[in-house]
Parts: sequence; C-alpha cells; structure tokens
Amino acid sequence: MRTLEWKDGVAITIDQTKLPTRTILLNMKGCGDVASAIKEMKIRGAPLIGVAAAFGLALTAYHSKTLRREQLMKELETSAQILRKTRPTAVNLFWAINRVLTKAKETTGDKKEVTEAVINEAKRMANEDIEVNHKMGEHGSSLVENGDVILTHCNAGGLATVGYGTALGVIFASWEQGKKIRVIATETRPQLQGARLTAYELKRENIPVTLITDNMVGFVMAKKQVNLVIVGADRIVKDAVINKIGTYSIAVLAKAHDIPFYVAAPISTMDLSHTSSEVIIEEREPKEVTHFRSRRIAPKNIEVMNPAFDITPTKYISGIITEIGVLSPEDLNHIKFERYKHY
Amino acid sequence: MRTLEWKDGVAITIDQTKLPTRTILLNMKGCGDVASAIKEMKIRGAPLIGVAAAFGLALTAYHSKTLRREQLMKELETSAQILRKTRPTAVNLFWAINRVLTKAKETTGDKKEVTEAVINEAKRMANEDIEVNHKMGEHGSSLVENGDVILTHCNAGGLATVGYGTALGVIFASWEQGKKIRVIATETRPQLQGARLTAYELKRENIPVTLITDNMVGFVMAKKQVNLVIVGADRIVKDAVINKIGTYSIAVLAKAHDIPFYVAAPISTMDLSHTSSEVIIEEREPKEVTHFRSRRIAPKNIEVMNPAFDITPTKYISGIITEIGVLSPEDLNHIKFERYKHY
Repeated sequence: MRTLEWKDGVAITIDQTKLPTRTILLNMKGCGDVASAIKEMKIRGAPLIGVAAAFGLALTAYHSKTLRREQLMKELETSAQILRKTRPTAVNLFWAINRVLTKAKETTGDKKEVTEAVINEAKRMANEDIEVNHKMGEHGSSLVENGDVILTHCNAGGLATVGYGTALGVIFASWEQGKKIRVIATETRPQLQGARLTAYELKRENIPVTLITDNMVGFVMAKKQVNLVIVGADRIVKDAVINKIGTYSIAVLAKAHDIPFYVAAPISTMDLSHTSSEVIIEEREPKEVTHFRSRRIAPKNIEVMNPAFDITPTKYISGIITEIGVLSPEDLNHIKFERYKHY
Repeated sequence: MRTLEWKDGVAITIDQTKLPTRTILLNMKGCGDVASAIKEMKIRGAPLIGVAAAFGLALTAYHSKTLRREQLMKELETSAQILRKTRPTAVNLFWAINRVLTKAKETTGDKKEVTEAVINEAKRMANEDIEVNHKMGEHGSSLVENGDVILTHCNAGGLATVGYGTALGVIFASWEQGKKIRVIATETRPQLQGARLTAYELKRENIPVTLITDNMVGFVMAKKQVNLVIVGADRIVKDAVINKIGTYSIAVLAKAHDIPFYVAAPISTMDLSHTSSEVIIEEREPKEVTHFRSRRIAPKNIEVMNPAFDITPTKYISGIITEIGVLSPEDLNHIKFERYKHY
C-alpha cells in the first residue's frame, strides 16, 4: 500500500513509531489526528508530512458541517494554523498547506465545489509525490554504478514519502536497472529511523543492506567500504541543506574521505529565499534521548540536546538530485522554479 | 568504593551493564568469573580490564589446592590463557597478565610465597592505576582552561579504571582546581557507556554535563559549543590510537572544526612495537546493535557491523596525556619506556 491513502473521508497511514516489529494502521478522521500523528512522528519524512498536511485540510473540508463557502474557508485557515505548528523545520509542510489553501481560494463555486477541489488537490499531491520520486530515481540512478556501496542516513524511503522515496528512490531505481549495489544504513539515533525503517524497506526489496550505528560512519569510510552517500532533505536553503541530525557529520566525513555526497529531494523542499541562519531547528523532547521505549538509559535529570536536524553547508554537497535533474549546489543561488512558485 | 576491590579471596566489582539504573555488586571467586565479566562487558575500560585480569590470576593463586609451586605456575598459565581470550584489542589486558606472570616467575620460594606475590602484585597494580590517573589528571589539566567545554566519548572515567579515570580524570582534576568547565558526553552506541556511565560519574560530582547522541557531534562543533576533545584509549600503537568505535569520526570532525583532540591513557596502553594494521579490532555480537535490552529494534536477520573500536591516525591527535606528561604523537616514533618494558 501507499504510505498515505484516502478512503471516504478517512486518511489511512502506518504508525511509523511501531515499525518494523508491528504494523499498525492509523485511521485519521480529522485534521487534529493528522497534526498529532506528525508531532509524534507516527508520520515523518518531509515529503510525507507535506502530503499528510494536505490530507489534513481535506479531512477538515470533507467533515465540515457548514453550508457556507466563507465558513469553510475559515475552518481551513484554522486547520492550517494547527498543522503549521506541528513541526517547524521541514518546509514541505508549509508548501503543501499553502498550495491547498491557494487552490481553495482560486476555486469558484460554493462549499461543495471548494471541498471537492481541496480533496482532489490533496490526492493530486499524493500522486505527484510518487511521480516526482520516480523521476528523481531516474536522474539519480545515473550517478550510481554497478558495484557501488551507498551509505544513507535516517529514512528517505517510501515511508518518508507517499511511496518509492527520495534517496531510497534513487537506490530502488538503480537496483531495478540491475545494478548490483549494496547499502549501509546508519541507525539514526535517537528515533532509529535507519534501523527501523530504512533497513526494513531495503530488506523487503532484497537489496543487500548492512546496519551500522551512527558512530561507525568514519570507520566504514576509512576502510573504503563506502563509495557514495545519498541522503534526503527536510529543507534546502540558498547556502545549505537541512536534514536529519547526523547528516552534517556524515558530510564532513565524506569530504575527508573523498566520497561524493548527494542529496535527493523534490523541488517542494526548496526554500531558496532564505539562508540557513533563518531556519528554526526543531528541538525535541529530552526523553527521546534519555529513554528507550519508556525505559531510562541515562541518569535522572540529566541535561540533553535533541535537535532533530542539522545544517550541511553547500560546500560539502556534490549535487542535489531533484525531479528536474541533478543540480549543482551553485544552482541554488540563481535557479528559479517558476512553475512551482505560485503554490 | 573503588571499581575493583579485593577482599579475602573475592574480587568485588560493579556490574557496569546495569548502571545507572541499578547498582549490582559482582563477587568474583575465580578466574572464570573475571573472564566472563570482561567478555560480557560487566567489567570494561582498558585500564580496569588490565587490573581485573591481574585479580583473576590472584584468584587462581588464592584458591589453588595444589601444594607445589610448579603446579601453581601451570594453573596460572592456564588462567592467563583464558583471560587473554576474553577481548583482543585493549593491550592493558596482555600487559597486566604478563606483569603478574613475570612477578610469579621471579618470586623465589614455594607455593605460598608465589601466591602472596601474585596477590600483592595485583593489589599494587590497582593502587598504581589510581596514582597514575591522578598524575594524568595533573598533567592533562594544564591543557584545560576556565570556561572550556570538553567533549568526551564513551567512558574513560573511574568506572573504566580502578578509580578516578583517564579522560575523566583530567576533567575531575580541572574541576578540583576550580575551573568552571562543562562537558558534552556522547551516548556511545551500541552499549551507551556515555549515557549510562560518563553522564552518571559527572553528575555525581556535580560537573555540568550535557548528553548528546553520537550523530550530534558535528552539530555541536559547528555551533562552536565545544572547544576541546579528550578521550581515552584501548591501545596506542606507533601510528594511531585505538579507542571505542566513534572516536575516529570525532577526531576527523574536531580537525575540520580546528578543535584540539587529546587522548588520555596510561603508559600501559602503549604498544609501540606495532602499527595499527597489526591490531585486531574486536567485532562483537550483532545483537548489541539490533536489540535494546533484549527488545528488537531492527528487522529480523539483518546484516550488521559491530566493531568495538576504531583507529585514529596520529595526524588527528594534538597530544597524548600520560602519567609522565603530555606527549606529542611524534614521540611515539622514538620514545622508549624502559621502566615499563620488563613487564
């Protein structure tokens, strides 16, 4: 199944905090359900968060009891506010919300027409996400050679998107082309998306994958066991890529070992009117670090840092794999994405 | 209490796998108990492993039923073989075993005299370990300035030694001198010695400590929140320092951010007749990575790497803090430790 599906006023997803040991479906019936799922990281991954927010607005429209277009608009705006507050860093969230709200405003007609337009826009975005990932896979796979060992961080797979994935999409496409590749997946503390989700997705497709802890990256690079890094992104600004905590360390290590470091992300992740100093890096609960599934692993009352993301300056990046091709980091300074701009 | 104590033919230690949530004392009554505790990492840390092995031999001598010196020598040799097989990387283990065996051989007299000599030598080594750590603290603290924020990895504290610690010894000494310092402790996957032991030791002394996951090292360095790194060592060879997995990544990151990177280790950690390519890096059970206190966190049958150590070439090392002073990495090429050589 797709990571996110719409069925008669219910948005259905998988609770990603329970994978891979348990597959629990989550039936979301209102925007509040979507917002909680994003906050608690039952839904995570920048592209998926974006489409989920769109479905959140679709749920608001579908279940609205009003008969008036104007009132629906207000309800959508309220839902948008709730969704915007879930997580501050991934820009796809804001992009998706704005896109759906713009669609609603541009739609002529009464409440019924607007509702239909909102639901259809969300569905379209889900379809587009998969298309875009396949295009990324096509472009990105040109960088992957037979025999490559690719290191990836966190989960930028089918589970971080509606389907197929960004960084893992490139890996899937390369594998489908018959290239004999292997993957090294970092476990990605504190939430272990690499161990729980990436290893699971790759194993399901029979792609050889080796799991390592985050602090083994230097070791495998020094031993020449990696020759390519591909990661996803939560926000791309003019001077940097913002992605899961640990990405920056990997990028510095890749540079020190002369290993190409690529980012795979859709254009919806671009926020090129800003620079990294303007981006809020989400600080999450200390408990994610000090506890492991509610069991304490550190002394009580210990001070903890828990930034969910870090900032990788463009000088560490070999290229950015998008649905329109592989961009060089310098492109971020002048490229204009006109066709995406109106969202 | 000391991490390791001798009382009437019993070696008493703390089961470090249970800290900090439970403090369980382990009464070891024979060399086999010591060997198991080292293997299972109930006892860990290169200097402590060394002294524990010495106590293992002391237990063999103490409980031996033979009346003949020659037979005791054989039993000691058998115990030494068992102890040597516990863990291959930390050189203090082999150093300590050889030192006790040499002492036994050099001791004239019958079984009783040899037994006494072996027990006394083990006790002497425990006392020396603490002395040496205090000297290291003295020398190392000259590198620490008021206001410094020191990043350390794994646990090189009182729990990795008989008492006081190596890298943490330097931190304790600086703190005792009234320097207002702060520490950032990496949690150190897979066994979490940083979260469980280092954070615990520092908190006990009221030294400000912040816990981070291993993949946050680049983040805190880029934000200029660290200005000094001090770690321990399991073996120092001519061209490199071998220490807990993750050390090398931190060293590369420190260099990229112009942060001094120091190693604190006693001379007993030196193995200067070898180079890093000759050192066996212990590969531990995959379960340490895929399971968390017996709960699975990764897909079944996943391939895993679990090297316990990595290799940091001397070019990344600003200096080596020892009981005889702070050595430069170049010193490793010509220095002779005559007074330690006969062990």
